[in-house]
Amino acid sequence: MELLRNKVITEGIVLPGNVLKVDSFLNHQMDPVLMQAIGREFKHRFAEAGVNRILTIESSGIAPGIMTALEMQVPLIFARKQKSLTLTDDIFVETAYSYTKQQSNDITVSKKFIQPGDKVLVIDDFLANGEAAFALARIVGQAGAEVAGIGIVIEKSFQPGADLLTGEGYRLESLVRIAGLEDGGVQFAD
Amino acid sequence: MELLRNKVITEGIVLPGNVLKVDSFLNHQMDPVLMQAIGREFKHRFAEAGVNRILTIESSGIAPGIMTALEMQVPLIFARKQKSLTLTDDIFVETAYSYTKQQSNDITVSKKFIQPGDKVLVIDDFLANGEAAFALARIVGQAGAEVAGIGIVIEKSFQPGADLLTGEGYRLESLVRIAGLEDGGVQFAD
Repeated sequence: MELLRNKVITEGIVLPGNVLKVDSFLNHQMDPVLMQAIGREFKHRFAEAGVNRILTIESSGIAPGIMTALEMQVPLIFARKQKSLTLTDDIFVETAYSYTKQQSNDITVSKKFIQPGDKVLVIDDFLANGEAAFALARIVGQAGAEVAGIGIVIEKSFQPGADLLTGEGYRLESLVRIAGLEDGGVQFAD
Repeated sequence: MELLRNKVITEGIVLPGNVLKVDSFLNHQMDPVLMQAIGREFKHRFAEAGVNRILTIESSGIAPGIMTALEMQVPLIFARKQKSLTLTDDIFVETAYSYTKQQSNDITVSKKFIQPGDKVLVIDDFLANGEAAFALARIVGQAGAEVAGIGIVIEKSFQPGADLLTGEGYRLESLVRIAGLEDGGVQFAD
């Protein structure tokens, strides 16, 4: 996706430890025109997938998620992250480890919003190790619903998440794929 | 706003302790068409305010915020909530008490995204005691920028936030105003 790739080139900042900072357009300040273009691109890529709801995770997944939901005219659900949780009967819970924050989060979705037979598109801003995407996919599975696809804004292809997800048979569409973050620059995978 | 008011009537759930649960369309599952309508309504109400950026707070402010940003063609910034924080030089920090969660949060915004002279529209999903709105307004003040207005999706008019904000001279626009949540029902203020 050319518009997004150009934003990464012009505004992305590479920090030590394989960190790509994109807080000027994706996960702190957000460019709404770019978000709309992202929504249109995901709609285009998953147009034939029969999606009837979209699942993302707070906070940075919400803007691309709601724009995709608007384009596809389906509801968006965002999973909540909590450090630990008193279990209740009416929520799905899965655990995901955050390598960035070095802690595990419980990820929760109210059971009433995903039903057996639903075709759920999972959307997130970044894919690195795949912890969040797998946790969301497991929640879809708990609900007896189907993962129609996984849409990622920025994939760090040099980390294991993408291979693990496609290895499990998920259909993965990443709008920008990054092969490396060497020498303070961004190397794209395609 | 008729569409929103009807959603509150048909899908809102009143719980003990003055809680209005709207997780089916506003703060867990989200209706993108309603979000777009909310964005259009805020644009209409603040069309003459000279807004050049929008500030909201994670997580439930992001969807109405990005839709308003799209309609107004300005960037959205979402403030992050953290329980406590190691101070750094490049962020604005304010503290807000959450009555719902009974804890104080540090609310942070990167300094590079609000500049002196900016006219900032503050957007949030709920207004009750006004803690979050005031914290966001103080961040705008720290930046030497101006609060062009405060746009709220659902105002609990029977709690003190609305009066406190207008008392301080802020221009407040709430799309739905709730006078009370007595006897399991929603009483509207207008």
